[in-house]
Amino acid sequence: MKIKDIGEFGLIERISKKSKKKDVLVGIGDDAAVVKTKGLQVLTTDCLVEGDHFRCDWFTPMQIGKKAIEINVSDVASMGGIPNYALISLCLPKDLDVDFVDEMYEGFWQSCEKYDIDIIGGNISRSRQIMISIMITGTVDKEDLTLRSGAKHGDLLFLSGAIGNGRAGLRLLQEEIKGYKKLRKKYLEPKAKLDFSKKVSFYANSMIDISDGLASEIKHICDDSNCGAVIYKDRIPIDDEVRNLANHLSEDAFDYALYGGEDFELLYSVSKENKDDVIGICIGEITSRDIFLMLKDKKIRMKNQGYDHFFID
Amino acid sequence: MKIKDIGEFGLIERISKKSKKKDVLVGIGDDAAVVKTKGLQVLTTDCLVEGDHFRCDWFTPMQIGKKAIEINVSDVASMGGIPNYALISLCLPKDLDVDFVDEMYEGFWQSCEKYDIDIIGGNISRSRQIMISIMITGTVDKEDLTLRSGAKHGDLLFLSGAIGNGRAGLRLLQEEIKGYKKLRKKYLEPKAKLDFSKKVSFYANSMIDISDGLASEIKHICDDSNCGAVIYKDRIPIDDEVRNLANHLSEDAFDYALYGGEDFELLYSVSKENKDDVIGICIGEITSRDIFLMLKDKKIRMKNQGYDHFFID
Repeated sequence: MKIKDIGEFGLIERISKKSKKKDVLVGIGDDAAVVKTKGLQVLTTDCLVEGDHFRCDWFTPMQIGKKAIEINVSDVASMGGIPNYALISLCLPKDLDVDFVDEMYEGFWQSCEKYDIDIIGGNISRSRQIMISIMITGTVDKEDLTLRSGAKHGDLLFLSGAIGNGRAGLRLLQEEIKGYKKLRKKYLEPKAKLDFSKKVSFYANSMIDISDGLASEIKHICDDSNCGAVIYKDRIPIDDEVRNLANHLSEDAFDYALYGGEDFELLYSVSKENKDDVIGICIGEITSRDIFLMLKDKKIRMKNQGYDHFFID
Repeated sequence: MKIKDIGEFGLIERISKKSKKKDVLVGIGDDAAVVKTKGLQVLTTDCLVEGDHFRCDWFTPMQIGKKAIEINVSDVASMGGIPNYALISLCLPKDLDVDFVDEMYEGFWQSCEKYDIDIIGGNISRSRQIMISIMITGTVDKEDLTLRSGAKHGDLLFLSGAIGNGRAGLRLLQEEIKGYKKLRKKYLEPKAKLDFSKKVSFYANSMIDISDGLASEIKHICDDSNCGAVIYKDRIPIDDEVRNLANHLSEDAFDYALYGGEDFELLYSVSKENKDDVIGICIGEITSRDIFLMLKDKKIRMKNQGYDHFFID
């Protein structure tokens, strides 16, 4: 059964679920949702486009649905926030199987359930490519709010986990290489570091998620905080499978980590006096200016390069 | 100059503006926006897709930008709310002219300025078709909140203005007919009825905007309010140009009004005792069940038919 067989309203009926949260006065089914709010609200939107962010022969519909939620939760997590509501805007080809939409929605629901997010609205349009635009709102306590602009000279720089998996996973699938089970799963099923963020946001002076590569993200922090940084190359955590794949392809695993994307790990800076209170992997330090990569015996200026959707073919 | 010449980050620099509202702690430029909130919040998202909602040879980029904001404001207005923030998610072809994006953003800004909306975030991805997904939040006072489910037996049904323009305008452009200046402008530059909503929302028991045709919208109200309705056909306001065009094409102007779409007028129901306090055009009445169209000499059951993106070729 195709979408064009049941139409927009047939589809909406299949995917509408009642909201669970008591603060939702109006959920799916009216012109807009209405919720009770107070305090600081975090709002973010991120989009997945077929061919750019995912390929239907690589990802299952469920994985696409989950990824769409995770990448938005990751943005909320990087602000030190807790997500609560989602709006889902879908553009779908009319010849797409309804089963695909059902399974993708199962992915939305499972990931939303995990994070206690209510889907309170959305809309569906027709397009040639599948496009999923999600908006998530959340709340944040003032003392947990972690901006790109909060880094201070002398702060230590931490990562929540190994990076380079995003680019390595993409290369794995592009080159149709077998094996690398863990890496494959990490790429196809990325996870937002929300629990991690809850543990470090109180102590972090600045935070960002690694969506376009470490080099690009540290530059955002330094630009916005008016500071510099030094990163110790040998401290950058990279999984064995990522190193092995890079070797196999005669590529550089550090390039994956520095200039790749879609890792969704958190990069954050913490004052030295709080370093024993935070978890994570210390990879460097905030300085007064310029961004350097420290090798064993030399210091090189970090290239300003990250994943750019419009520069990739 | 094409988007691929300046990339995602080049584009983001051109379109980032600082927020003006004092309640915006973090606007464009971090992983998410952060705003102070309290009370009831309205949240909606609507999408414009090239080829489905607009054609680039019909609309100027500025008109596309304005329409994208207006259709979302219309959803907030139909809840009795006041918009305040927007997130803009764009999917753009890499060969698109940067000038197109600049001009479209000028449209976003002009419409947002008109409604005192701050654009606080968004994202840009690459796609084959232009897709604009906008999320708008707003506030609403409890006494102004107008749901689809609030209609009461005996309420009078009102429209904020003439309908049928959406479908008529589409037909005008599809058939490449000259003239019809007012109709053309109404189609290419639709306006949300926010000021109108402010005047009637306090009195309205239910409200919806006409985005998929009157027949479809009255059915939403009746389904959600568990009631019926009768609409007097000769009271449905239709502009002369719409009638003239329908005649010219040997089509029925009432079909445009009943089963067309994209009119963005408001349909609302008001208790009889408040009828002298509201503005608008009375077209019918809420009954206990079934939806009828009343002609001069007979009563016919309203067809359940509206604009469906997936049923149109």
